[in-house]
Amino acid sequence: MEELVGLREGSSGDPVTLQELWGPCPRIRRGIRGGLEWLKKKLFRVGEDWYFLMTLGVLMALISYAMSFTVGRVAQAHKWLYQEIGEGHLLRYLSWAVYPIALVSFSSGFSQSITPSSGGSGIPELKTILSGVVLEDYLDIKNFGAKVVGLTCTLAGGSTIFLGKVGPFVHLSVMMAAYLGRLRVVTTGEPENKSKQNEMLVAGAAVGVATVFAAPFSGVLFSIEVMSSHFSVWDYWRGFFAATCGAFMFRLLAVFNSEQETITSLFKTSFRVDIPFDLPEIFFFVALGAICGVLSCAYLFCQRTFLGFVKTNPVTSKLLATSKPLYSALAALILASLTYPPGVGRFMASRLSMREHLDTLFDNNSWALMTRNSSPPWPAEPDPHNLWFEWYHPRFTIFGTLAFFLVMKFWMLILATTIPIPAGYFMPIFIFGAATGRLIGEALSLAFPEGIVAGGVTNPIVPGGYALAGAAAFSGAVTHTISTALLAFEMTGQIVHALPVLMAVLAANAIAQSFQPSFYDGTIIVKKLPYLPWIRCRKISSHRVVVEHFMNRGITTLAKDTPLEEVVKVVTSTDLAEYPLVESTESQVLLGTMRRAALVQALQAEPLSWAPGHQRCLQDVLATGCPVEPVTLLLSPETSLHQAHNLFELLNLQFLFVTSRGRAVGTVSWVELKKAISNVTNPPAPK
Amino acid sequence: MEELVGLREGSSGDPVTLQELWGPCPRIRRGIRGGLEWLKKKLFRVGEDWYFLMTLGVLMALISYAMSFTVGRVAQAHKWLYQEIGEGHLLRYLSWAVYPIALVSFSSGFSQSITPSSGGSGIPELKTILSGVVLEDYLDIKNFGAKVVGLTCTLAGGSTIFLGKVGPFVHLSVMMAAYLGRLRVVTTGEPENKSKQNEMLVAGAAVGVATVFAAPFSGVLFSIEVMSSHFSVWDYWRGFFAATCGAFMFRLLAVFNSEQETITSLFKTSFRVDIPFDLPEIFFFVALGAICGVLSCAYLFCQRTFLGFVKTNPVTSKLLATSKPLYSALAALILASLTYPPGVGRFMASRLSMREHLDTLFDNNSWALMTRNSSPPWPAEPDPHNLWFEWYHPRFTIFGTLAFFLVMKFWMLILATTIPIPAGYFMPIFIFGAATGRLIGEALSLAFPEGIVAGGVTNPIVPGGYALAGAAAFSGAVTHTISTALLAFEMTGQIVHALPVLMAVLAANAIAQSFQPSFYDGTIIVKKLPYLPWIRCRKISSHRVVVEHFMNRGITTLAKDTPLEEVVKVVTSTDLAEYPLVESTESQVLLGTMRRAALVQALQAEPLSWAPGHQRCLQDVLATGCPVEPVTLLLSPETSLHQAHNLFELLNLQFLFVTSRGRAVGTVSWVELKKAISNVTNPPAPK
Repeated sequence: MEELVGLREGSSGDPVTLQELWGPCPRIRRGIRGGLEWLKKKLFRVGEDWYFLMTLGVLMALISYAMSFTVGRVAQAHKWLYQEIGEGHLLRYLSWAVYPIALVSFSSGFSQSITPSSGGSGIPELKTILSGVVLEDYLDIKNFGAKVVGLTCTLAGGSTIFLGKVGPFVHLSVMMAAYLGRLRVVTTGEPENKSKQNEMLVAGAAVGVATVFAAPFSGVLFSIEVMSSHFSVWDYWRGFFAATCGAFMFRLLAVFNSEQETITSLFKTSFRVDIPFDLPEIFFFVALGAICGVLSCAYLFCQRTFLGFVKTNPVTSKLLATSKPLYSALAALILASLTYPPGVGRFMASRLSMREHLDTLFDNNSWALMTRNSSPPWPAEPDPHNLWFEWYHPRFTIFGTLAFFLVMKFWMLILATTIPIPAGYFMPIFIFGAATGRLIGEALSLAFPEGIVAGGVTNPIVPGGYALAGAAAFSGAVTHTISTALLAFEMTGQIVHALPVLMAVLAANAIAQSFQPSFYDGTIIVKKLPYLPWIRCRKISSHRVVVEHFMNRGITTLAKDTPLEEVVKVVTSTDLAEYPLVESTESQVLLGTMRRAALVQALQAEPLSWAPGHQRCLQDVLATGCPVEPVTLLLSPETSLHQAHNLFELLNLQFLFVTSRGRAVGTVSWVELKKAISNVTNPPAPK
Repeated sequence: MEELVGLREGSSGDPVTLQELWGPCPRIRRGIRGGLEWLKKKLFRVGEDWYFLMTLGVLMALISYAMSFTVGRVAQAHKWLYQEIGEGHLLRYLSWAVYPIALVSFSSGFSQSITPSSGGSGIPELKTILSGVVLEDYLDIKNFGAKVVGLTCTLAGGSTIFLGKVGPFVHLSVMMAAYLGRLRVVTTGEPENKSKQNEMLVAGAAVGVATVFAAPFSGVLFSIEVMSSHFSVWDYWRGFFAATCGAFMFRLLAVFNSEQETITSLFKTSFRVDIPFDLPEIFFFVALGAICGVLSCAYLFCQRTFLGFVKTNPVTSKLLATSKPLYSALAALILASLTYPPGVGRFMASRLSMREHLDTLFDNNSWALMTRNSSPPWPAEPDPHNLWFEWYHPRFTIFGTLAFFLVMKFWMLILATTIPIPAGYFMPIFIFGAATGRLIGEALSLAFPEGIVAGGVTNPIVPGGYALAGAAAFSGAVTHTISTALLAFEMTGQIVHALPVLMAVLAANAIAQSFQPSFYDGTIIVKKLPYLPWIRCRKISSHRVVVEHFMNRGITTLAKDTPLEEVVKVVTSTDLAEYPLVESTESQVLLGTMRRAALVQALQAEPLSWAPGHQRCLQDVLATGCPVEPVTLLLSPETSLHQAHNLFELLNLQFLFVTSRGRAVGTVSWVELKKAISNVTNPPAPK
């Protein structure tokens, strides 16, 4: 009994139940249990967020995989139909064309009928949301289904429609992140926290890219480059965690489905490892980058112009406004007719899927050299072991086909981007770049059939390397990002071309960024979404522009001594969300802000009894408990434009009050900043 | 003659000289000339910065290469000396030990005599500089030479001293960037611009990492993760450009010097590409990550404790204060004696250089399987074709040697970090992690000699893959970064282990970050450098802490109506850099700040003639033109701690004024924020 008491008083003083004592080694067991408890507590403490991030990654991977799987099956059915339907040209043409037309018009009709904002990639809208603008309903989970179904149909259109998955998937992922965030608020009972919400959205964007390409690194970096102008390392870590979970799950499913032996990259290449390229080739890589940069400028300009044209042209704009499915069907008809393989389609490898396009373009053999002396006939059906034959035509050779592909896809892609369906525009651009690179690579391999001699060893040129560089450079230039280089490596599982590809991407970006806004910025401009431009002007004079010069002086303040009638008049005549409260009409010393809703409520609750001799003023309403929110950050009229811009960008602000010696003298919002920036960059002509 | 006039009036109306007309196609030539002019202007407009970034990259690459070259030659000389000196043990020992001792004590004495702050890696100091603190002279170019020479000597010490190059190189690079920035200010005559300076420093840090490892991607990301808590995409692009130039130049020099056939990665591996690892191995990779995380916690704790011990212990602290070279020599003596190959050194592969350590650890064969049945004797000299034999000992086997290496290097590395020489601590940590991974990989390959069966195919386990994951995970955990995973891929030129390595790094980071500050933060704490901690506490209550609760209320203001005597008294009794100017002693409405220097000058210029009846006050001094600087950003007492912290971190602020209704009521600086954060995280015990 004494021993029992001693034991009870030992080990941290908690009472020991008899049952515990009966088992062997009670102390050790208690220790283990304590350790587990501690671990549980620790995990939950650190965890919390991690669970949500993991759920997000895994869920999106499941959806992405299910979508790929469905699309694959639908495409396979189309292929089978097309091959089995017999030799008659009309039937074959119909079986080729009706499929994508039906899919695209269904996609358009279905998704548009549920959410009008589901068209396009969604990245431009996300960009504005992440910069602090509230776009109502854009992240509502009820649009999720519409976008998933619509996107699946679009993707099932295959290389005929030639559209991708990334953009809408990023949107889906962010929707899911927002939904999970709201779910957490409900389950944990924590108050909503704006910064935490934002963190979740940023992680969602990274997951979107990562689960499409199984590329966590570039997923995080690409989403950052595209979405934000700055980011915190904390967000970046969370993005990595979620993206890794997503990418892992995505590839794991492929293994479980016996598509892959183990976890590998999506578009595995087999470039020569020992000497993948010779030193002088670096020059051609940079030149390829420059060409891609120029091409991207042309593409961006034409795309923006055509988008504007479609929106303003009376015929198309009416069609788009009233019957979107019809417009989609017409566009799909054009695209399908042009890609009909026995017709023009045979000159642009239209029997290959987009995945096969990339696989063949990254091939490490030189087609030009292989077909130099022999000219195999055009096969009736794609040869699964030599898919690249699709790129070859006996009369036009490789070069003719590649060039024709580039010319046709250039405007077909621009046409496809105007179709109002959920669709991504990254993948087609990536393939377009790969074809550009391949063309140049093949030309080089023909020009130097012996390869480039360096250090006494001759190495044949690998056109696939140029295709890789071209893909990264062109997509990087169009989206104004550099991480596409990393994406190319993660997608192919080889990093041997690290420096040349990076240099090509930098060259392409240098050209594209100095002449055209990015694809997403261009869409923001065309769609007239709110955004804050960069201050590109680095002149010294721009540092002398201060808030005083451009702030909005027409500020409606409510003073404590404002008579109630006047308050009512102000509230009914304006519709600001918040009104600044000042000490008195005379002093204008800023005290805080009042939400319109709260103010209206308080005014209504107030018994409007005008006691004679005592004019009731705002102060009386405040005394009844109408909440005044503090203003936590103030600008002064002497704050410079650069500083104010920096603040708005870093803190995702909507507007700030400007005070001078405590007096509210104005406000600054995006509108003023934008005007000031455009004035600085393009000074108004002196009158 | 008429034709001539027509021509003159054609092409844009400029006069055409006769000489131009004599050549063929004057119009085309003029057009081309105009185009070139335009291109030149364009390049100069965009350029400006780019030239400086490129210069920075190329210069640092040249220095890095020259340093590597020198170090290689010195190490070769040492090797030759050691091999040629004969069989006598004393002579051999002396030749082994004297070399590093002499180098380290010279490095210590030389660099410390020129700049006392040149010891260590420099990254902790850079971190505080980039967060806005001004450390005098730390980036002065005159320290450049001392650091270069000191670092070269340190590196020449080789694997005996076991220290790396990255940290000091980042410091050198940032020094160079600061110098180039100052040069630009002088040459262009532009006024100094704080944000532009900062951009240059961030790019410099990226160049530092990139020119050491020839890894532009991870150079940029690693420097960002280590240095900042947030960054702008603009800085990141500039960093990429500079880092790519640096990495390209660095590898180009290797090609020119005939070390390489073409531009390749630094530590090329040849892992199996088709199925580099099986799915179940993912579990072991994550477990390895967790082990590395735990190890890194132990390492960080011991390192910090020992550093503190050395600083407080009377013997060592005196030694360090008075004769640094002696301390360095003693430490080097211990290290050299322990690594003497015929002694204990043979059990830890001490005849290999650090580069060879990594090369062998990343070997794709399983040593355990290769030595299972045969036991080759320990070779008298390293076999250049089978360097990995150095890791093998007939009696201890591979496992004994690797384990012994880990145990010994653990504390030897901690000892080495206390030596006051310019040295990097990343590379040794990377190698340590690689050895950890290798040990586990070898154990697995022995435990599953047939490999892991997946999908009907058996694949032997590649221990080199584990070494890669271990290196990335351990170095990532110690430095609290994730980009080490990318660094591992860029260094080896293979990315086949992308997902498992990333997962290992994430697991290691999760453990390390929740228990220990990073290596650099730890040094900041031990060195008592100013820094702003993260708000780790995510409790809701922490959001209720507002500026009012922690601001410094003891604010010394100067009012316009303060009598001059009092102003003089205030200025002489305090030594603030700036004094807030308020409207009147009574109202305390903040008007701006006055620099102490300007104020003192104005006070001295003022004829101190006291006219009777009229007490002169500060206003009179202001009237003479003493400049008042505007306060551009104000906090209010209701700003939350989180918001204030965010502001300080994002804008690199030093302090802000707090105003309430225009009245200056307090200031907030790092000191207050730090105190408030520590109160929130560890609430003070209620008294």
